[in-house]
Amino acid sequence: MSADHEEHLTHLSTTSRVEAFSDGVMAIAITLLVLDLKLPSTTNVANGGLLDALLVRWPTYAAYLAAFLTIGIIWLNHHTLIAKIARFDTRLHWLNLVLLLGVATLPFPTSLLAEYVGDGGPNASVAAAAYGLCATLMALPWSFMWRQLRDHPELLEPGYGAAYASAEMTRGGIGVPIYLGATIVSLFQPLLALALYAAIAALYAITFQGATSPRSVPNPSPRAKGEGR
Amino acid sequence: MSADHEEHLTHLSTTSRVEAFSDGVMAIAITLLVLDLKLPSTTNVANGGLLDALLVRWPTYAAYLAAFLTIGIIWLNHHTLIAKIARFDTRLHWLNLVLLLGVATLPFPTSLLAEYVGDGGPNASVAAAAYGLCATLMALPWSFMWRQLRDHPELLEPGYGAAYASAEMTRGGIGVPIYLGATIVSLFQPLLALALYAAIAALYAITFQGATSPRSVPNPSPRAKGEGR
Amino acid sequence: MSADHEEHLTHLSTTSRVEAFSDGVMAIAITLLVLDLKLPSTTNVANGGLLDALLVRWPTYAAYLAAFLTIGIIWLNHHTLIAKIARFDTRLHWLNLVLLLGVATLPFPTSLLAEYVGDGGPNASVAAAAYGLCATLMALPWSFMWRQLRDHPELLEPGYGAAYASAEMTRGGIGVPIYLGATIVSLFQPLLALALYAAIAALYAITFQGATSPRSVPNPSPRAKGEGR
Amino acid sequence: MSADHEEHLTHLSTTSRVEAFSDGVMAIAITLLVLDLKLPSTTNVANGGLLDALLVRWPTYAAYLAAFLTIGIIWLNHHTLIAKIARFDTRLHWLNLVLLLGVATLPFPTSLLAEYVGDGGPNASVAAAAYGLCATLMALPWSFMWRQLRDHPELLEPGYGAAYASAEMTRGGIGVPIYLGATIVSLFQPLLALALYAAIAALYAITFQGATSPRSVPNPSPRAKGEGR
Repeated sequence: MSADHEEHLTHLSTTSRVEAFSDGVMAIAITLLVLDLKLPSTTNVANGGLLDALLVRWPTYAAYLAAFLTIGIIWLNHHTLIAKIARFDTRLHWLNLVLLLGVATLPFPTSLLAEYVGDGGPNASVAAAAYGLCATLMALPWSFMWRQLRDHPELLEPGYGAAYASAEMTRGGIGVPIYLGATIVSLFQPLLALALYAAIAALYAITFQGATSPRSVPNPSPRAKGEGR
Repeated sequence: MSADHEEHLTHLSTTSRVEAFSDGVMAIAITLLVLDLKLPSTTNVANGGLLDALLVRWPTYAAYLAAFLTIGIIWLNHHTLIAKIARFDTRLHWLNLVLLLGVATLPFPTSLLAEYVGDGGPNASVAAAAYGLCATLMALPWSFMWRQLRDHPELLEPGYGAAYASAEMTRGGIGVPIYLGATIVSLFQPLLALALYAAIAALYAITFQGATSPRSVPNPSPRAKGEGR
Repeated sequence: MSADHEEHLTHLSTTSRVEAFSDGVMAIAITLLVLDLKLPSTTNVANGGLLDALLVRWPTYAAYLAAFLTIGIIWLNHHTLIAKIARFDTRLHWLNLVLLLGVATLPFPTSLLAEYVGDGGPNASVAAAAYGLCATLMALPWSFMWRQLRDHPELLEPGYGAAYASAEMTRGGIGVPIYLGATIVSLFQPLLALALYAAIAALYAITFQGATSPRSVPNPSPRAKGEGR
Repeated sequence: MSADHEEHLTHLSTTSRVEAFSDGVMAIAITLLVLDLKLPSTTNVANGGLLDALLVRWPTYAAYLAAFLTIGIIWLNHHTLIAKIARFDTRLHWLNLVLLLGVATLPFPTSLLAEYVGDGGPNASVAAAAYGLCATLMALPWSFMWRQLRDHPELLEPGYGAAYASAEMTRGGIGVPIYLGATIVSLFQPLLALALYAAIAALYAITFQGATSPRSVPNPSPRAKGEGR
């Protein structure tokens, strides 16, 4: 234990650094969203006053709120996921990078959505589909991460095993077909796709609440006492 | 204890990650403010020299300083609050996200204020009211967080109980009516509202100084010895 | 041990702060890349629709992906490197700052590459060479850091010694001549240089997989039991 | 000790959060500097080629490098300072915020310097003086922090006492008159002021090397054994 302790004094563990880097990327992505809330053009303000110039840009604020909450929900889920992983192997590192790529990229389709969804027609469809593809990218790694954890349960924290990972793999994979479906819908009905995106965010929010305890899992290992986080 | 120790070597606790994510968002929001301090336009510099072109933009610097100090004060208070929370449940997570939404958004009304408060008239009122609404959003979660801690004192660190949370709930709720009042004032007297915003920031700064010790709290638990942070 | 423990409660170690600062810079650099994915100009959208206006900018997306993966790979390698360093002396601090300078600067030549590599001619060569020089800067410090660790093996974690550092020094130095070579190639064949940059990124990705264990190293110290990170 | 340990599992200490927040602000400020390295205007590239359009902006790169190294040096010194502080009181928190204000603001006078120092005349003087004032702001808090630590040595880590703080207070105060002097010089000789700014950065770099050990300090406390960080 003394050697463990000494080690602890000089380093964050591998998992802690993954947490720190991921938290950093998500904190920055969520905060960079404010850069889209630009000052209205002076011409618009001169013509109709500041209030009208601000109000006419309501899709920008709606997109800002939606993207803020989406990244917030992903952070909550990511935090629940990583709390169950004891060690990251190379595959988990890469899958985590793909997730971060989706999060870091989200501000771009969000600004497309804000700019073009109100116009209708093909441009609104393209913007809504771009958002859907980016969201699919963010939904993809979860299921693959759980599959890797199912196949290598020694990477899991004590108290979680292959059966738990298998159940999470199914649950974590639901997002992909739904987001892909919403992306296809967006080609014909961009506003309906928007409503679907919001519904999926709500699904993730509900999902988050029920997933923090391993108590109902059928295979608690004998080491289960230590993980009551 | 050995299992606890092992766990500690691989993960930051839930609360530590909330701290890290919140610190990240606040550090980024406070640093992004500098992006508003743009180079003056070359036309202005050519006409009157660099010094005049810089000085004429004094409201930008005043707004930069005000927003920097406001986020700094919120960070100090947030840090004092979180030091007393042992565990985050879902409701505390969401209330913390609302607080971070307010912090991350503040740069936008700050730049509106810097741009329009000097003009007077309805545009100055709109800009000052936008700042007031964002500040109200930032003031809202504190009282709700303390209410949740009062109702679930098991989420508090040892040494803090329901009575302490109840007192903090009252204290933490003061900001909302004051900010709402200042927002109403801003509709008629934007400069007076500005002075009120500054006064509330000062109130938070004073509030911060007295709130770090649980010593005067009537219900110290028998475990109180361990929390002298 | 009690004093150690007390100390631990108040501070991250020196190495932990280097990790935190480096992770911060890399997380920010990787997330700032999205700022290059700007909305297409309204003229382009009005003329050919949003889809064409987006698709015509494919080099921007390719450069975004390449830079995201490059910084991701550097983060993985940096994380493997730092896990083996017990203490940072002044020289290691400075070499780490040079590495961070390269990472923080990479978004600039990346945007040059995205903008000009499709044009061909001298501008494409200049853009590709600028990327190559920045990549060389990022490749330089690794070998110097391992040389310092070879000469001062007391800075290494237990279980790693001068022989291990010496082997890593050779391996870590490979990037520099390859990147310099690719930079020279870029003067004549910018697209070929691009392919070389991608190949080197793949090399780093493969390198990463094999370098996490000291087991095959000839000089395991008697303290080797404690470092199984 | 069990209670301490439990507490440790749920929270970073106050000092760790100050470190994390400060590291965040400094990491962001140092990385945001790259946003000044903009693509050259298409007109300039069309007229003289990309290489000339890049080379003509050399002051931008010089200012980028200078500011990157300045913030890097401040990070190194800040890290050395905080390693000696066991607890932050309100005054230390505020002085640290002033330091972070200086760091976060530095990118603005840096871009002024890059833009106008080559022009000579009053505009170059104004830009160089703005940089000098911001640097003075960054130099101010060090001495005040050490004075607070001298008057409250119980805030220091074991092994450091009032005499050590007193010596550091003198050393930490040198920067202010030098930066103020350089600011006055900048009014008449902006390029000479630039050279002085570079010289002070070098002074800080040298200062950093000699300040990590308390061994030569006359008042080692009996608890000195625990602080060998």
